[in-house]
Amino acid sequence: MNFLEERIMQDGVVKEGNVLKVDSFLNHQMDIDLFNQMGEEFKKRFADKSINKILTIEASGIGIACIVAQYFQVPVVFAKKSKSINIEGEMYVAEVESFTHRCKNQVIVSKKFLGPDDHVLIIDDFLANGCALQGLIQIVQSAGGTVEGIGIAIEKGFQPGGRMIRNLGYQLESLAIVESMDATTGNICFRDSSQQEKGKSGTL
Amino acid sequence: MNFLEERIMQDGVVKEGNVLKVDSFLNHQMDIDLFNQMGEEFKKRFADKSINKILTIEASGIGIACIVAQYFQVPVVFAKKSKSINIEGEMYVAEVESFTHRCKNQVIVSKKFLGPDDHVLIIDDFLANGCALQGLIQIVQSAGGTVEGIGIAIEKGFQPGGRMIRNLGYQLESLAIVESMDATTGNICFRDSSQQEKGKSGTL
Repeated sequence: MNFLEERIMQDGVVKEGNVLKVDSFLNHQMDIDLFNQMGEEFKKRFADKSINKILTIEASGIGIACIVAQYFQVPVVFAKKSKSINIEGEMYVAEVESFTHRCKNQVIVSKKFLGPDDHVLIIDDFLANGCALQGLIQIVQSAGGTVEGIGIAIEKGFQPGGRMIRNLGYQLESLAIVESMDATTGNICFRDSSQQEKGKSGTL
Repeated sequence: MNFLEERIMQDGVVKEGNVLKVDSFLNHQMDIDLFNQMGEEFKKRFADKSINKILTIEASGIGIACIVAQYFQVPVVFAKKSKSINIEGEMYVAEVESFTHRCKNQVIVSKKFLGPDDHVLIIDDFLANGCALQGLIQIVQSAGGTVEGIGIAIEKGFQPGGRMIRNLGYQLESLAIVESMDATTGNICFRDSSQQEKGKSGTL
């Protein structure tokens, strides 16, 4: 087990409905030392990529993205979930369905902050169905930019998002992939890293 | 002028309706080096305070709070703006009016992450009417915790939030206080730091 899997075993709580609560260290209270470990690890995994911008989506992706950005020495842009009166002018827009909130959102990024010269690392806390990620990829493509990679803290391996994104050829690195979890026993099974590697080379 | 005032002069844009757009470095695209300078500065200004937690509010406060947290070696908790199905159990709730979005929100923090032992530094990107800040203070008080200080990137000095919070006796440190701005000329006037100091000692 790596540092994140160990932390999930220690502090994560499995709830009915395939909900994994990690709000004590990831997405409500945030452990900044842990985020720094994640930054180091993403820097290793994307060492061969030339990245000049990190893109994430509000709200819980922002903290991780900002700490990770320090390892790449790049600015962060976060996609917003609703139109604000402070954002005017032209924007990239994508439609995103939220599993957690059971609603559809438009996510928007100002055209000023993404363009054809951008080599983007997308960062988010969770990957399940991949809806948010599809929206972010769509936005980078609309801008004519390049998605150099995708870094996720926790992937729900039993939901289709990860497989779909990997099948599209993207380098998707999830620091912990939950294969299954059981709300009754509290047990959590992670995908074996070697299996993860094998699966990746099989699809690329 | 300090580093943040200089950056606002360089990249901030004044819009009609007393809107100051700083989305190229503060609250849409985020300059992480600048956030680190802010962290250093807040650490200086709150050097005599014993702080064990940073509290902020989604979304644009999160990035600053996470970088600033590295200078205090503490975790960050962010208040959420709407009830999520992933947050269950007991929560602290405060009502907050948003100037930008012209609507009322409930902001919530899980009771697990704030308590009587917490000595809290509140961090946010903007202070105007102070509604968000009042909500956060109220939440810390509900938890029985102590607000050790409040660190703001940009305060609109011509709106009542700052004065009100200082009159309540809180140590409120705003890195840039805009006294006035003019959408026609693009001119921005900052409050003189010495005047700021005088105002502060006068109210405490």
